[in-house]
Amino acid sequence: MYTVYGDLISGNCYKVQLVLEHLGIKYQWKHTDIMAAETQSTEFLAKNPVGKIPLLETANGRYLSESNAIMCYLAEGRNLIPIDAFDRAQMMQWLFWEQYSHEPFIATSRFIILFAGRPTAREQELQAKRTGGLAALERMDSHLAEQDYFASQYSLADIALYAYTHVADEADFSLDPYANIRSWIERVENQPGFVAMPSKA
Amino acid sequence: MYTVYGDLISGNCYKVQLVLEHLGIKYQWKHTDIMAAETQSTEFLAKNPVGKIPLLETANGRYLSESNAIMCYLAEGRNLIPIDAFDRAQMMQWLFWEQYSHEPFIATSRFIILFAGRPTAREQELQAKRTGGLAALERMDSHLAEQDYFASQYSLADIALYAYTHVADEADFSLDPYANIRSWIERVENQPGFVAMPSKA
Repeated sequence: MYTVYGDLISGNCYKVQLVLEHLGIKYQWKHTDIMAAETQSTEFLAKNPVGKIPLLETANGRYLSESNAIMCYLAEGRNLIPIDAFDRAQMMQWLFWEQYSHEPFIATSRFIILFAGRPTAREQELQAKRTGGLAALERMDSHLAEQDYFASQYSLADIALYAYTHVADEADFSLDPYANIRSWIERVENQPGFVAMPSKA
Repeated sequence: MYTVYGDLISGNCYKVQLVLEHLGIKYQWKHTDIMAAETQSTEFLAKNPVGKIPLLETANGRYLSESNAIMCYLAEGRNLIPIDAFDRAQMMQWLFWEQYSHEPFIATSRFIILFAGRPTAREQELQAKRTGGLAALERMDSHLAEQDYFASQYSLADIALYAYTHVADEADFSLDPYANIRSWIERVENQPGFVAMPSKA
């Protein structure tokens, strides 16, 4: 059985849960608290020298990090990955785009606001993330004006992008201007095995 | 035949060339100059709304962006991707790590210094990238103390990480302290089909 080290209020960890639940794969979840520095303990660093969650442990004790790599591994050959090579490549394109052009703006803004308590010292950093975050949401909304899902079908790309987009308001990015994103969020939430992200409160 | 829109002094574009040359795949290269805003023309934006290179055009006129997604697509079923599922997952882990924890520090520092001419106004931004860049190099060097390549064999992970690491000095990151990285660079440069990145001068 798989073990996942993670915290479900982290979108990157929540992605892994969404994949496991959608696919009906058995797993145990080991809650790992970033704010309590549990990812920096000697024990955890021996598992993942990068000191980050999510971390997947396989039945035979091997470890895998990076949320999107974990998702690809868990979903291999399953219905969350398109069969056609080019369709699959487009899914990968969105997975890399998510980590480079979405997460560093929206997820990190949410972290500063929700977890770090929006300290004055980080206000400039937060403001610097506005342009990138808005550009990411614009890009998503335009794409979703043309198709229901990011790749040719519901796939890992949707799960990866849903994780932080549906809580964009917690990062101070309103979804009000983005009707296509809002409809897509509903479609994702109606997928088999969908589970809601716990709220921080 | 494939067409690649790119600029070979961009590491992200150069990655795609390394894969094509290693695999002996025929392609035409359309030089696209970021500094001359060629990625922002109406014509280019119709191909890639994100306005970025590299961009791959397939024989039947479909487009794919994101360097690491392009590499995965081109190398599918070839010797640059491990056959074993977990080995392949580890390669993917390093590909995502490269885009999140390496490129935003080292590649962007190199861009500010080499292309933007290191303006005083961006000095603070450049300094803010030191910690992340050094952490990335430390992580790579430790990993390479244990194995010859990033995944179980020479793979896309090595090509992705080589692209900007071998020119880290142009980003003001010296490789002198990292003997394991320097040996690995030699191993990469001895691979079949290897071509050197052109110099900016």
